[in-house]
Amino acid sequence: MMAKTQAGRFITLEGGEGAGKSTQIAGLAKRLEDAGIGVITTREPGGAPGADTIRSILVSGDTDRWDPMSEALLNFAARREHLIRTIWPALERGHWVLSDRFADSTMAYQGYGHGVDRDLISALYRAAVGDFHPDLTLMLDLPVAEGLRRANERNGASAAAAEDRYERMDIEFHERLRAGFLAIAAAEPDRCAVIDAGGAADEVAARIWSAVESKFAADLAAAGRVGD
Amino acid sequence: MMAKTQAGRFITLEGGEGAGKSTQIAGLAKRLEDAGIGVITTREPGGAPGADTIRSILVSGDTDRWDPMSEALLNFAARREHLIRTIWPALERGHWVLSDRFADSTMAYQGYGHGVDRDLISALYRAAVGDFHPDLTLMLDLPVAEGLRRANERNGASAAAAEDRYERMDIEFHERLRAGFLAIAAAEPDRCAVIDAGGAADEVAARIWSAVESKFAADLAAAGRVGD
Repeated sequence: MMAKTQAGRFITLEGGEGAGKSTQIAGLAKRLEDAGIGVITTREPGGAPGADTIRSILVSGDTDRWDPMSEALLNFAARREHLIRTIWPALERGHWVLSDRFADSTMAYQGYGHGVDRDLISALYRAAVGDFHPDLTLMLDLPVAEGLRRANERNGASAAAAEDRYERMDIEFHERLRAGFLAIAAAEPDRCAVIDAGGAADEVAARIWSAVESKFAADLAAAGRVGD
Repeated sequence: MMAKTQAGRFITLEGGEGAGKSTQIAGLAKRLEDAGIGVITTREPGGAPGADTIRSILVSGDTDRWDPMSEALLNFAARREHLIRTIWPALERGHWVLSDRFADSTMAYQGYGHGVDRDLISALYRAAVGDFHPDLTLMLDLPVAEGLRRANERNGASAAAAEDRYERMDIEFHERLRAGFLAIAAAEPDRCAVIDAGGAADEVAARIWSAVESKFAADLAAAGRVGD
């Protein structure tokens, strides 16, 4: 049921709308590859055929299309497929997996944001994921107004506009979401690094690389030696 | 989160393929209506718009399309929508709700059939359903060979052939399924009545009515007085 051997490392990027996760994940992947590491990037909900099918029914439609607990269950169903078909096999092959969102998003959106009992979400985690956890979670943090401004700019100029169901929720919701991500990071400081996502993309990338370097110094040194 | 007041009664029909649930549910609904009771019939997975969307991705495709735990999560997501949008509102209005399958099917198919940890399935139940339970569960029991023979006859003659993913699983699976339903009934004798589903449809209907009459004698007497 679980990844039997984990040769690679699992890094997740979390944060609200407009935090720059997709830009940063691409930059981090390139930097790790340049350091001699095999990397795959993926995103949730999605990242496997069944998970993408579930994504398609989650990200569109009315904001109240799903009861929040139903939505948490759908997210964990997609996550389970993502783990079994994509993440665990890649880690066993020795790849590093970078995921744009993982379980903290369900805790933040459905738990902190929509008020689903957080102990029940933890129970879903144990059922769907077991005792597996990311090696490092980068919490990209940004004031809500700034994040929504960025997200609106992006959607005005791209096909992502059809996937804006979460962004149309109210400001108070996004404030609860931000506070939720920060509470998760505070409760699990060994796993989570809060990254200031304000300023230019290359400044944020430097902060991210600093967190990755300090967490995985030994792995990076070993990869560098192999690459020589 | 839960049905606040339950004026109606919730009856579920469970059992393997070919047990005759859809025929029997229609007959039971008519008999209850004749007794002066307002009835709605429904089925799982499905019974609400979002639940029907989830059904469409569950009942077709390869038999190994979903990991069994993913499938349990999808079933509970559909069940949650079914409860919130259909079952609980109907019970609050005072209707009796008859459902073709409910949570025992997830425990039997994914738990007993596919070996998912049954404690984890119980945890999903608590998350999605809470402490709500059917007032009566009719377990339609039939030898596996007889059930599959009936299911094959039905599918040969109808559009249900496209929804035969479960029936194509092996005989040993269906034996575990039958044993699972019987184990659930043995563990919860107050809620569950095992009904011999062998023989003619009207014989099975008489057995079902006997179980319903004995469970709900007071309700039926009261409905009869109202109807006079």
